[in-house]
Amino acid sequence: MHVTVNAATSVDGKLASKRREQVRISGPKDFARVDRLRAESDAVLVGVGTVLADDPSLTVKDADRIAAREERGESPQPARIVADSRARTPPDADVLDDPAPTYLLVSEAAPADRREALEDAGATLLIAGTECVCFPEALAALESEGLDRLMVEGGGEVIFSLFEANLVDRLSVFVGSLVIGGREAPTLADGEGFPRDFASLELEDVTRLDDGVCLSWRVEDRSTTE
Amino acid sequence: MHVTVNAATSVDGKLASKRREQVRISGPKDFARVDRLRAESDAVLVGVGTVLADDPSLTVKDADRIAAREERGESPQPARIVADSRARTPPDADVLDDPAPTYLLVSEAAPADRREALEDAGATLLIAGTECVCFPEALAALESEGLDRLMVEGGGEVIFSLFEANLVDRLSVFVGSLVIGGREAPTLADGEGFPRDFASLELEDVTRLDDGVCLSWRVEDRSTTE
Repeated sequence: MHVTVNAATSVDGKLASKRREQVRISGPKDFARVDRLRAESDAVLVGVGTVLADDPSLTVKDADRIAAREERGESPQPARIVADSRARTPPDADVLDDPAPTYLLVSEAAPADRREALEDAGATLLIAGTECVCFPEALAALESEGLDRLMVEGGGEVIFSLFEANLVDRLSVFVGSLVIGGREAPTLADGEGFPRDFASLELEDVTRLDDGVCLSWRVEDRSTTE
Repeated sequence: MHVTVNAATSVDGKLASKRREQVRISGPKDFARVDRLRAESDAVLVGVGTVLADDPSLTVKDADRIAAREERGESPQPARIVADSRARTPPDADVLDDPAPTYLLVSEAAPADRREALEDAGATLLIAGTECVCFPEALAALESEGLDRLMVEGGGEVIFSLFEANLVDRLSVFVGSLVIGGREAPTLADGEGFPRDFASLELEDVTRLDDGVCLSWRVEDRSTTE
């Protein structure tokens, strides 16, 4: 399994405003870059917080990229995956619409009626973890489904969990030219945070794009930074 | 008054760990860049949180830069300024040592005995604001003291307050190649956060430095981004 995390942040590392409202951080060139990353993936994963806040469809938008996938013998669209320990995804969420299959990663604590409603809405449920989603287990289950190239689009809780479990291979971040501020606004990596032994990266690429800059890192194993 | 904010953050916008412990984010080339910025300033400002967490001296370290200041007829060191509404700076803090004069920006709510102890320790107190430091008033008072070029080194509460009051002219951030994580770890711009009308910047320079990248922006007036 190869995991690429991609996000757009403000200068101060925020993914959205303190009200968790979506903010236009990037521009058309970054949208195209994200669309290309999706088209190169077997599946696109987000946390349920992102589904509840933004209701994304997570599909590839560009017709040529969809056609190229089909020429390569792939499905027209990558699968969608929602990390959703309590099965809180609304059954009418866009991520459950027709263009692509959708997997929900739920825990054993997800209520049976919620699971049933989501299976009725067309989702495939994978149970991994007792109370929270256990990502090493979840990613192994996804690999058994033939999904090898995973793109992660947020939010900060999922991204931190993946770094904590040492499951991230690459990280790319578009840094937009704005300050959002707010000690409670969601950041690229939230969760509990590392007390020390921070995730260490190797900067691979720096490219100015739209009115900001896109930074890409290869992820090294976690080691003592301080 | 010309205000430059400078900071070093992790990829996820954090200034320190969730325990507010200092983290080595940058390297020797960035230290030299910060030293040069200090040497080009009339004063260096931090919030009291930074004094309590890190006990910085905020002085220029390089002997040639100190000599160059003196050749230009300036004081050997820039002044130090602490935004400290309640006068919580410890009288034995390094920021109050001998190499440079130190101003404390306090509010009317600062206890008289604390003020007195800090004046005894050699600080000059400027009162600006009733409960919190009122930065437009404080910066005007500093300007009357002949301090025109201000460098701000954090933390996130002070930086957000300055952006909120539209007082920042330039921002430079060294982004180190690590993920700190933590929904409660301090970020580059904390405070209440902008609900909308985010501070809008213009990216001026992108330079790879040490194992990270240094980004510099000119600050535009706040306008509707979304």
